[in-house]
Order: sequence, then C-alpha cells, then structure tokens
Amino acid sequence: MSILEKVNYPKDIKKLNYDQLDTLCGEIRELILKTVFSCGGHLSSNLGAVEAVVALHYVFDAPKDKIIFDVGHQCYTHKILTGRKDLFVNLRGNEGISGFPKSQESEYDVANTGHASTSISIACGLARALSGDEQIVSFIGDGAMTGGLTYEALNDLACTGNKQIIVLNDNEMSISKNVGLISNYLERLRRERIKRPFSLFNLKYIGVVDGHDIKALIRAFKKAKAADEPVMVHVLTKKGKGYPDAEKDPEKFHGYSPSAQKYPTFSQIAGETLCKLAQKDKNVYAVTAAMASGTGLDEFAKRFPERFADVGIAEAHALCMSAGLAIGGKKPYFAVYSTFLQRAYDQLIHDVCLNSLPVTLLIDRCGIVAGDGETHQGVFDISFMRALPSLTIACPKDGEELKAVLRWSLECKTPLAIRYPKAEDSNKYDVHTPIIAGKWEYLTDGKADNVLLATGAASVADAVKTAEMLKDKGIDIDVVNARFIKPFDSQLLEEIKNKRIFTLEDGVKTGGFGEGVVAYYSERNIAADVTVFAFDEKPYPQGSVEFIMKKTATDPTSLAEKIYAKVKA
Amino acid sequence: MSILEKVNYPKDIKKLNYDQLDTLCGEIRELILKTVFSCGGHLSSNLGAVEAVVALHYVFDAPKDKIIFDVGHQCYTHKILTGRKDLFVNLRGNEGISGFPKSQESEYDVANTGHASTSISIACGLARALSGDEQIVSFIGDGAMTGGLTYEALNDLACTGNKQIIVLNDNEMSISKNVGLISNYLERLRRERIKRPFSLFNLKYIGVVDGHDIKALIRAFKKAKAADEPVMVHVLTKKGKGYPDAEKDPEKFHGYSPSAQKYPTFSQIAGETLCKLAQKDKNVYAVTAAMASGTGLDEFAKRFPERFADVGIAEAHALCMSAGLAIGGKKPYFAVYSTFLQRAYDQLIHDVCLNSLPVTLLIDRCGIVAGDGETHQGVFDISFMRALPSLTIACPKDGEELKAVLRWSLECKTPLAIRYPKAEDSNKYDVHTPIIAGKWEYLTDGKADNVLLATGAASVADAVKTAEMLKDKGIDIDVVNARFIKPFDSQLLEEIKNKRIFTLEDGVKTGGFGEGVVAYYSERNIAADVTVFAFDEKPYPQGSVEFIMKKTATDPTSLAEKIYAKVKA
Repeated sequence: MSILEKVNYPKDIKKLNYDQLDTLCGEIRELILKTVFSCGGHLSSNLGAVEAVVALHYVFDAPKDKIIFDVGHQCYTHKILTGRKDLFVNLRGNEGISGFPKSQESEYDVANTGHASTSISIACGLARALSGDEQIVSFIGDGAMTGGLTYEALNDLACTGNKQIIVLNDNEMSISKNVGLISNYLERLRRERIKRPFSLFNLKYIGVVDGHDIKALIRAFKKAKAADEPVMVHVLTKKGKGYPDAEKDPEKFHGYSPSAQKYPTFSQIAGETLCKLAQKDKNVYAVTAAMASGTGLDEFAKRFPERFADVGIAEAHALCMSAGLAIGGKKPYFAVYSTFLQRAYDQLIHDVCLNSLPVTLLIDRCGIVAGDGETHQGVFDISFMRALPSLTIACPKDGEELKAVLRWSLECKTPLAIRYPKAEDSNKYDVHTPIIAGKWEYLTDGKADNVLLATGAASVADAVKTAEMLKDKGIDIDVVNARFIKPFDSQLLEEIKNKRIFTLEDGVKTGGFGEGVVAYYSERNIAADVTVFAFDEKPYPQGSVEFIMKKTATDPTSLAEKIYAKVKA
Repeated sequence: MSILEKVNYPKDIKKLNYDQLDTLCGEIRELILKTVFSCGGHLSSNLGAVEAVVALHYVFDAPKDKIIFDVGHQCYTHKILTGRKDLFVNLRGNEGISGFPKSQESEYDVANTGHASTSISIACGLARALSGDEQIVSFIGDGAMTGGLTYEALNDLACTGNKQIIVLNDNEMSISKNVGLISNYLERLRRERIKRPFSLFNLKYIGVVDGHDIKALIRAFKKAKAADEPVMVHVLTKKGKGYPDAEKDPEKFHGYSPSAQKYPTFSQIAGETLCKLAQKDKNVYAVTAAMASGTGLDEFAKRFPERFADVGIAEAHALCMSAGLAIGGKKPYFAVYSTFLQRAYDQLIHDVCLNSLPVTLLIDRCGIVAGDGETHQGVFDISFMRALPSLTIACPKDGEELKAVLRWSLECKTPLAIRYPKAEDSNKYDVHTPIIAGKWEYLTDGKADNVLLATGAASVADAVKTAEMLKDKGIDIDVVNARFIKPFDSQLLEEIKNKRIFTLEDGVKTGGFGEGVVAYYSERNIAADVTVFAFDEKPYPQGSVEFIMKKTATDPTSLAEKIYAKVKA
C-alpha cells in the first residue's frame, strides 16, 4: 500500500518522517504525470513544486493558515493533499475539478486565481483583515515577480509591516525563458534583482533553500513561521523535476495537451505571417508578455531578435511600450491572450486609443478556452473594446483570412485589434473576398429570408454548421462573415434590414456584437427583427469547447433549434 | 522688459546666463501662479518643477531629444517654453490649451498623458524605435514610482540596457502624502527605497541634486547627457515652491479651482457617510490609491486609521488588496476616479467579479470632468462594467440618495459599483423612495406618454431641466431616475414599453445604459420606441461641463429640441 493512499488531508502528512515524505513526493509526482498525460494541464511548474507544497502543508495548518498560490500553476499537489485526490482524475474536464485554486471547491483554496502576480496583494488584504493568529503564506514564482502588481503589493507590505510569509519559488524562468534575454550577464543580473529587493522591501530573508530537499524546506518554513516580521523564503526549484523531457524543455511542457495536432493553430499562423511582414517591412516589431511560445512568436524571436521584445509578465508595460514604439514611427504587434489584455486596459484606452496610435493587438484565446476555466475565458473583450475611440476590431473567419487581415494591417494607421480563438485552423471556406475595413462577406448566396451574422472563426464555423442543419430541416439561412466588429458594414446591414436576422459571437451578450447590431437599427429607427446569440454574463468553468457550447445552448444543434422555432413561429 | 517676454522656444534660453535663468524661473512662476488662480489647474507640482524643466530645455535639444513628462502635473513650464506662452492664458479652458502634454498641440509633447507611471514605459518603446542620436528623458515624480507600470518598465530597461535618462523629481510626496503613512521611520525607509533601486535596475546614479539650483541641475543633466548607459538623475524639489501657502499645504494646492464652493461635493458626502458606516460597522474599510483628499476620505483616514489604506498610486493593488480584505470577512470600499478604475480592470474582473466578492467601488469623477480633458473623462465605465458577472451598478441622483445607497451597501453581499460625478450636490428632489436593487423611481407622476430614463446625478439633473423646457413647449414627459444601471427595473420597463422612451447617461453610447434598454426590449421581442442620448465614442478635450454638453448636443436645450422634434414628427 502506498503512502499516498493513506493521505487525504494535511493532517495525514504531519506524522510522516522525512523518508516517508520523500516517498510521498514521488507518488504525488506519478499521479500528476499520469493525470496530466490523460487530461492535459500545467506540467512543468507543478512537477517542480511538489516538495515545497508538501513541506508547506507539513509546517502550516491550513485552512486556518492561508496559503495563497500565485497564478495557480503549482497547485496540483495542494489539491491532492486537501481532499481532492480522488477527484483529480477528472482534472480540467467537463464538470471536473479546476486546474487552478477555486474557493468553491475547497476551503483550502484561499483565492481564485489564474492570472499572475495577485498573491501578495491578496495577502496584504488578508493580513489587514485577519486577527493575526493565522499565518499568511504567498507562494509565488519568479516569473510572476515581474508583474507590476507584485511590486505594488510589496511596496504596501513594506509600509504596513504586516507579518506575512512570501515563498519565492525560483525556477529561474517564467513560462518562457525569463524576460526572454539570452546573455549570461543578464541571467546573473536577474538573480541579483530577485535577491536584493528582499531587504529593500523590508523583508527578512531566508535562503537559498533547495526546493527538492524536504528536510531543508521544512526547516526554512518553520523558521519563517516563528518570525514576527514579514519574511521571504527563497526556494530554488527545477521546472519539470522528475520528468526528464520536461526538465530539458520546460516551456514545451508548461501546458500539456494529450490530443494530437492536425492543423496549424491560429497562434502559429499569426506568428508565421508576422515573420513574413517583418521580412518585408523593417518597421514591424513583435511584443509579448512572457508568451512567446503560446502566441506563436518563437520563430519571430529567433529571426528578428532586434525587433522582438519579451518584457516578462507585464502586460501593461508591453502595451504602453508598444505605444512608445508607435510614437517612434514603428509598427508594433502586441500578441496577448484575450483574458490578459484586461491587465493592459488603461494602456489600451489612455496610451493607444485616445491617441489613435497604430498599435496592433493580436488577441489570442478569444471565446471559450476549454481546460483553463473561469479565469481564462476570452469572453469579455468584445464588450470592453467596442466603445473605445479610434479602435478597429477584426475577427478573421479562418487562417487564410487571418493572413489577409495581417497583410492589410500594415496599411492601417490607427489602433487595430485582431481576435482569434485557441483553436486549429480546421475549417476551410470557398469564399475569400478582399479585406476592407468594415466590409463583411456572404458565405452563401445572400438570397434567403433569414440571415445569420457570425463574427470570429469559432462562431463562423458554428454558423455554417447551423445553416446546414437548418437546410436539412427545410429552412434557408444565409451566413455572413461579420469579420469586423468595428466598424460595422452599414451597407450590408441596410440590405438585410427587412430579413429575419440572427447574430452569433463568442463573447458575452451585454455590450457585445449582437447588441451592437440591435443598437444600429434602433438608432436609425429601423424596426429590424434581430435575435442575438451570445453568452450570458457569468463565469464559465473548464470543460471542452463543445461541452460549454452545449451547456450554454450556443452549439449548432441548439442554435438550429432556436432559429427553427423562431422562423416557424 | 522681462526675460520671459523674449523667450518663446527652447533656443531662446540657451544663450542666457545663470542669473538670467534664475530670473526667468521667477517670471515663469509668476505666470503659472497668475494663470492657475484664474483658470484653475495643478499648482503645487508645477511650481516645484520650474528650475528642473528650464534646465532640461537648456541642456537637451527638444523636439529632437524626447522629454516625456510622467502624468503631466509638471508640464506648465515646458508649455510656456515651447511656443505656447501666449496660449497659456486659456489653460484648461473651453478650446484652450490642455493642462497635460498633448502631441496634437505641439511637436514638443512626446506622449499624451494624464495617468501616472507611463513615462519610462513609453521611453522604452522610443529607445527601441529611434536611431540612438536622440536623448530620451523621462521626467517622473516619486509619487508615480509606486505604480507597478514603472517597475515593469524599469525591469525591461534593465534587461535591454538602452540609453535613457530618468529624472526623478523627488518632492517627497505623491498627490497625498506618499503612501499615506505617518511614522518618520517609514519616511526614511521610503527615501531609501527610492535610492537603492537605481543600482538594482542597473542605472547609473547622479544625485542628489538641489532641484531649485539651476547651475547644479544643468551640470547634472549635462553629465547624464554625456553618459553612454541608462542613468537616473535624482532631483530634490519642493512642491509649491515660491508660493508659501502651497509650500505649507501642497496637497490643498495640488489642484486649484478658482470657483467658490456652495454645496458639499459628492466626494465629500461619500467620505462623510463612509465614516458613519465605519462607526456603526467594524468591518468597514476604506481604500485609496493616493487620492484620500480627492475622494473625500481624509476624515476617514484620521478617524479610522487602522481601517484605512492608502497604497500609493497603485490602483491594481488597491482593488486586489480589497478583494483580500473581503476574503478575510471585511467590507472594503475602494474610492477611485472613474478613469483610474481602468487601471484595475483585470482585478475587477479576475479578483472581484468572477468571485462575487462584496467589494464596493466608490467611483468618483464619472461623466465629464471639465478641466482635465481627454485622459480624465469618466465616460467609459458604464460600458466596461455592464458586462461583468455579479456586479451591481448604482448611480444615485443626489447626495441624499448617495447616502441611502451607501447605507444599503452594507447589506449587499456581492460586488457593487456606486457612480457619481465631480460636482457639488446642488440639485434637490422631492422624491426619495427606498433603495432596492434594480428598482428605479419616477420623479414625476408617471402619466405622460413620453418618458425620459436618466441615470446618474448629472443626467437626472439635466433630464429634469429638459422636462421643464418641454413642458413650456407643451410636451409632457416623465422623468425616471434609473438609479441602477445593473440590474434593470424590468417591471418599470414593462410598464412603459408602449410609450415613447428616451434615455440619458453621462457615458459613451456604445455598450452603455441606453443601448442596454434597447437590447432589453429587443431580446423580449418588444417593438419599443427608444431614443438613446449619450456621448459618441471619441476623446473629449478639456472645457466646462456646460461647454462640452453643448458641444456634444447633450445639454438640456439640445435634448429638449431633439425630443420635441421626435414627438412632433
């Protein structure tokens, strides 16, 4: 019988000796590997943190003591040790457990996360709120230390002097290589930069601790627990620890997906096309916030290092710096996940849109993003971008059109956002009309009495499927690729104003594309018949895209039923 | 003849000797004082920076060299020296010159600002974009150093090693006392914190320079210009320098307004009411990002210091830390200007709304904010908040109702935003019905065929005036105080569905309140007749509220005309 079989809660590990704890770590590592290879998930960071998390639960008394995982890329061991070992088999699955900390799942999960750099900030609130009997521990990777929010929180902590423990999980990289720079000199500098702020921010320093030596970890955490001032424990870990392939290439195994790839992803197409543009136009720059690989920019980084900037997990700076590039006459492309663009919202308004600067956003992971859940869904961007001055928003229907929009973007002298989903470019279309700002296109002959306006690759694909299903039921409906959310194609909207109109988008309904169409007609006193299909404004847990679409009744079958009912009514 | 009379451009000061430069500084100070006392504006920070800015233009060659003013609270001397001396008389006025750097005004203004902490980030972009012949100078106050964006930019700068000059204008305070802490110990610590990151971030350090000694300043800037590595010049200045009242109480003279106050402002009412709530309920906390005075929280800070947190210019942390307070069982109120809430947007979604935490936003300066212009207009928040899960949005019509909503907020267990304008509570109403979430109220008898739904204090006041004007023209129109933007009052909307409906709000039209009303009816297949009055989505320059309302044709006279035309059509 293994040790892990007898461990369900933190109390179960407190009686184990060091050898048993070591064995336990090995068993946990095996469970993580087995699960991630079957379900997908964050591999490298979770493998690297096993001993540190076991030691934390050995020393501290959760849930009374508060252990806050930054981002959450290292919480699997924590989940296994806090009553969720048996649920772990359905990690990230439909109605399964989340890959991130989630307070609704367990009282051991202090704060729901998924975005970086929030832990010390949350801890500052807890330190003010709680009585002082509780230990408050932030577990944060060195990657998340580059986020400005961490610095703002450290600044506050230094001023208030509340007792808190910060465990710096230093694996010497972010998701990508830290800050994306190559020179050894800068690697050394980075190490220095991490160490020296400890005293700067008035933190007692304990380190460096071997992050895979359970005894050393327990000793360090006990010392931190006994301290009566804020303390930073500096733990050195190895990403991918215990799985040689991941140790060798941790970025490759940052997020593991068990399914094989058939077609290029939209990220890859964006990255490749940007390389071609850069080849042609010396002004093209690419900017990322620690997501070179995820956004398909690794090739660009290799081929055009002098026009590539990875600024670390620092989305606000990435976009503001892009504004600086544009002021300097360059043509910057900032590739960012939809959900992380929220972190640069003021820069989008204040630095880019109010000044109408030619900065292009490559917004990846729009719409439903499957396994990562609530914190990663890219469903708000249409609503939060539609009202911004001078911004054009394009949503290409497929890879071909993404390429065309990117080529066209070189001529665009104002802010431009190009949205695409986390998906492979698997749907092919016969129709490919030239890109003109605000010009949509029919994917059908335009003769039906019903018309479905779909925006974005995911929605257009679903719209075509929906139209086929309806055809089988004897209903003709045209499909329009509404490839610009802003501006609208007013000519087309005029043409179809007397038809029965449906809209489909991969974002929340409120303030979205469909409501924009409704408002368009209302403003012109046109009594158009418009039905909007979009997501309700609520958090969407992890699950396959199909599962979530079905659950929200926005899958083609549900859409076909609703449209059928409306047409036949 | 004064020296200033002969100075129009930077070239005119380069031939002056130190004595003449000193005299010039005195004359500039007089011009600033005279102008601000007549037009209003940022006094303390501009008075403190006169010598430093004169020395900058003496040493560097703008516009070829790029001088970037962080926030812009210190750019008046720069404007006077760069061709705008004669326009200065209409500072911040209707169609006058902006109180902030504005590239449309002058090629000497590198980047449009108004929000803090962007300068080094913009400089990082320029340093990458430009040829290297140009000097790039960021002029940043110590207050803006607390913003996470500054840290993200310093981190990037340290890695790329581009030559840049950072002039740290250290006046030992933010807008409020820095970080809001009282102890001398922490004051010393703060000073240390500023100095030590210089070397940490791989910057050559020049300082401390007396910021009112023109000779010392010129020498230091020349040294910085000659350096071939990134350099920080640490300049000590005195806020309010040369005007004894402002030197004594610089926060009072941060923003000077020449008009006398008649009624309490909404900020003051919010602050006073929050004190009463805090007296009653030990869980009430108040949080600000360096805006204790502006948001009316100074009294709270004095009376409940242990439940008050000023985290410095760090809006993201302020809101994330508030989420931590709520997780810890407290009832936090984060008072923030509408435009600065943009800087905490991810925290609003990721940390507060997705988790439905009972954090209350006191959103000050909603709608048009007069003198500050484009970067300070609070016109986007309705659009960017309406789509967020679990958020309630309240817009009280007057001070009485603001108090009532605040009292009611104690029972609200989910995220709540309370919006109010930068205004005095000058409009009194007879109607005061109890606050119920999503319940609106008639300010008239509800019998007219036309109804104007107005949301927020500014719009409700204008709606009442509009109705009075229409009455004079023989048209009856009811006025509804739509005091919740979210949720809607569906019962009232059902009742009026066959009437002629108009909506009025102090935000952009796209995705706003009015479009929400249109969408409400459309979703229910109700062919309601709704006309939306709101701002077009574009930047609005400075000017009086009346001037901007008139220009956008949303003042009562224009509204009455439009409604009249519609009713008579």
